[in-house]
Amino acid sequence: MKELEERILSEGRVLPGGVLKVDGFLNHRIDTALLYDMALEIGRLFEGCGVNKVLTVEASGIALASMAGFVMGCPMVFAKKSRTSNIAADVYTAQVASFTHGNVNTLMVSKSWLSAEDRVLIIDDFLATGAALIGLRDICAQAGAEVVGAAISIEKVFQGGGNRLRAEGMRIESLAKIASMTDSSLEFC
Amino acid sequence: MKELEERILSEGRVLPGGVLKVDGFLNHRIDTALLYDMALEIGRLFEGCGVNKVLTVEASGIALASMAGFVMGCPMVFAKKSRTSNIAADVYTAQVASFTHGNVNTLMVSKSWLSAEDRVLIIDDFLATGAALIGLRDICAQAGAEVVGAAISIEKVFQGGGNRLRAEGMRIESLAKIASMTDSSLEFC
Repeated sequence: MKELEERILSEGRVLPGGVLKVDGFLNHRIDTALLYDMALEIGRLFEGCGVNKVLTVEASGIALASMAGFVMGCPMVFAKKSRTSNIAADVYTAQVASFTHGNVNTLMVSKSWLSAEDRVLIIDDFLATGAALIGLRDICAQAGAEVVGAAISIEKVFQGGGNRLRAEGMRIESLAKIASMTDSSLEFC
Repeated sequence: MKELEERILSEGRVLPGGVLKVDGFLNHRIDTALLYDMALEIGRLFEGCGVNKVLTVEASGIALASMAGFVMGCPMVFAKKSRTSNIAADVYTAQVASFTHGNVNTLMVSKSWLSAEDRVLIIDDFLATGAALIGLRDICAQAGAEVVGAAISIEKVFQGGGNRLRAEGMRIESLAKIASMTDSSLEFC
């Protein structure tokens, strides 16, 4: 998606440790017009696939997933990251390591909001090692829900997670695919 | 807002400790069509007020704030709740106690994304004691930004935070205002 690639080139910053910082337009500060264009593109890519639920992870996936759910006419469910006093005990869970934060989170989705009737589109902001996608796919499997595919804002293709999951048969559409990234250069696929 | 009140009555649940659970349509699972209607209503309420930025707190405020920002044609900024490896050191901060979770969080907004040019609409899902609103108002004051007002999904009027802040001059528009709430009854204002 040209519009997103251009924003990454003009406003993204590569931090030490391979973190791509896009917090001026996708995270922390969100360009809501760009967000809507991205949601439209996701809707176009998965049109006719029978998606009836969008699934993401808090917090950085929520904005795009809710906009995409709106565009596609279906509800959005977000996995919560830690056990709070406000969530039911009756949950599907998966353990996920965060590349950016260097920790492990438990993802949780209430059994009330995911079922065998669901055809799920997973949405997330970044795809690197694929850990979050694998966790969400596992949660869908626990619910008996079908994963139609995944839509990602930015895939770091050089980290391999996306292509490993594609090889396993998952359809993954990334709006920007980064082939390589250093402090001084960034190349799209 | 009638549509929201009806959903609260039909699908909300009051948990022990005064927690109103709306996780089937506003939190955890989000009804994206309702979300859009709520954003339209917020846009209508604050039309002509010169809002150029929407501010909320992760994670539960993000969906509504990003949709409202889209409807109002302005970017959305969300305060982050804890220091991560992925946020700049140069931040405005405020301490906020969570009624629901019984803990204290530090809210942080990067100095890059809030300034004296901003006319800010604060958006949040719940208003009870007003702690989150006070924290966000404080962050805006640190930035020299003007708070035009606040838009809230559900105000627990009986907890008093909203009316205390209105008495201090803050414009607060709540889409549903709960006058009283027990395990067996829920009354709107």
